[in-house]
Amino acid sequence: MSLLVVGTVAFDAIETPFGKTDKILGGAATYIALSASYFTKKINLVSVVGDDFPNENIKMLQKHEVNTDGLQIIKGQKTFFWAGKYHNDLNNRDTITTELNVLEHFNPVVPEAYQDCEFLMLGNLSPQVQQQVITQLKKRPKLIVLDTMNFWMDIALPELTKTISMVDVLTINDAEARQLSGEYSLVKAAQKILAMGPKYLIIKKGEHGALLFNKEQVFFAPALPLEDVFDPTGAGDTFAGGFIGYLAKTQDISFDNMKRAIIFGSAMASFCVEKFGTENIVGLTEKQVHKRVQEFIDLAQFDISLV
Amino acid sequence: MSLLVVGTVAFDAIETPFGKTDKILGGAATYIALSASYFTKKINLVSVVGDDFPNENIKMLQKHEVNTDGLQIIKGQKTFFWAGKYHNDLNNRDTITTELNVLEHFNPVVPEAYQDCEFLMLGNLSPQVQQQVITQLKKRPKLIVLDTMNFWMDIALPELTKTISMVDVLTINDAEARQLSGEYSLVKAAQKILAMGPKYLIIKKGEHGALLFNKEQVFFAPALPLEDVFDPTGAGDTFAGGFIGYLAKTQDISFDNMKRAIIFGSAMASFCVEKFGTENIVGLTEKQVHKRVQEFIDLAQFDISLV
Repeated sequence: MSLLVVGTVAFDAIETPFGKTDKILGGAATYIALSASYFTKKINLVSVVGDDFPNENIKMLQKHEVNTDGLQIIKGQKTFFWAGKYHNDLNNRDTITTELNVLEHFNPVVPEAYQDCEFLMLGNLSPQVQQQVITQLKKRPKLIVLDTMNFWMDIALPELTKTISMVDVLTINDAEARQLSGEYSLVKAAQKILAMGPKYLIIKKGEHGALLFNKEQVFFAPALPLEDVFDPTGAGDTFAGGFIGYLAKTQDISFDNMKRAIIFGSAMASFCVEKFGTENIVGLTEKQVHKRVQEFIDLAQFDISLV
Repeated sequence: MSLLVVGTVAFDAIETPFGKTDKILGGAATYIALSASYFTKKINLVSVVGDDFPNENIKMLQKHEVNTDGLQIIKGQKTFFWAGKYHNDLNNRDTITTELNVLEHFNPVVPEAYQDCEFLMLGNLSPQVQQQVITQLKKRPKLIVLDTMNFWMDIALPELTKTISMVDVLTINDAEARQLSGEYSLVKAAQKILAMGPKYLIIKKGEHGALLFNKEQVFFAPALPLEDVFDPTGAGDTFAGGFIGYLAKTQDISFDNMKRAIIFGSAMASFCVEKFGTENIVGLTEKQVHKRVQEFIDLAQFDISLV
């Protein structure tokens, strides 16, 4: 039943048209674990931080019942830091600073107690590190979900291709799907990418929703139209966390249940973007999550009988 | 039960990354009427062409049971002509030529036999001409749907605002909704535009689907992910035609039925973009339309019970 989450735990400094932050808690694994924690309570984290990482952040993760035994704290080194500034439309951003710090020589170690994991979520990291985690597991998980980004397509495509061939679900955005496949049509892109190994592909389109493909089927989940999108940082990771958290909870990896998981993931992402960083996905109630999912149902459901 | 369609009947010359056409049949009212003809058989057309307009086009419309008594044929003048070239992503296009011709002094006349219309679809035209049609009707239709574009926002905003205040449903694209309202958030834009008079607003997002708003509710319909989008010309009009055609057929203008109408409109638009011009929306069978609508159902429907 347990979910293993691998990815960055980091500091971000974010500037959007609506404000800016100092160094705040960020990182793919942080968003994934927090989001998944609304669905499943056996979450094991593998990541790395420096000794500048505040203990209160670790306590906050533990409060969300995230097991941090696999979080390496490297003495005398600093936590990964990213600073970025979003354009006015929030769809594009410039990286101001990337300080790899502890990430430069990250050697992921899966603790023995994590070996029973049935669901593995590989957040965005170098494809080599992602592979290392898969190969450390003595028993292949029931489902492996991989997130990656264009950066690795640019500098480590052969390694990335190998990692992609080892997973069940790949999540990337539309521009990345086009880059990876060389196809503009997302339908054609999806079929080429599925031929690389994964049984499922999720194409994230930000404010335009998300598509789930397998070789025969396609499902589309809208994004919730929001009055204000404040900060898109972490939305994709929050989406992935809700997705795999829901699957881990329900133990059902059918296409129909993946549809549900995508709606729950989208609901979690819609919370994320309403405030800076992780602020809005800490301490939500089940009632709030259900209310948000109901908004997706109202948004997308219609009733047509073709007789 | 009848549907009155007002708009251009025209020639288009289209260039896309996939090919180019000579002068072919185009015009908002052409697409609207053809698309609506799959749902309702009492379609009355008000438009204008020159004496260069081939009789075979008129016969084709009549074969789709479109009443062309209100189609003025101006002797010695030429039909409206537009030539455009699409960019590689098909989301943007440049106008190469616009020859207004008969449209320059178009004075729409609603024939007496059209006066019983219950549904009025005002395709994109000058807001003054659109108003003239509304004021010629002795009895207000059950539903008036207005399509317009940024061009009229740029050059005739006061007249456009007045026309908007007279209709029930406004259809525009996302950029136009932002321009008209001065709001980037489509949720905020929708509320400002609904305050201008219409009870419903449809925001068309092309390949990203369409949103339907009233003051309390919002519905999202996806676009069908297609292997090949060949030519987007007329897709918005085809969508509008399917939308109002379905409403005219079912005689139900509730929000729930508008949801269905938007799915049928989206299905019609998905046919339109697969070939040049009107080619792919002529002579479809009911079976083909239903099969396409079923693809939308499969694409968008999920089953979540929050208990």
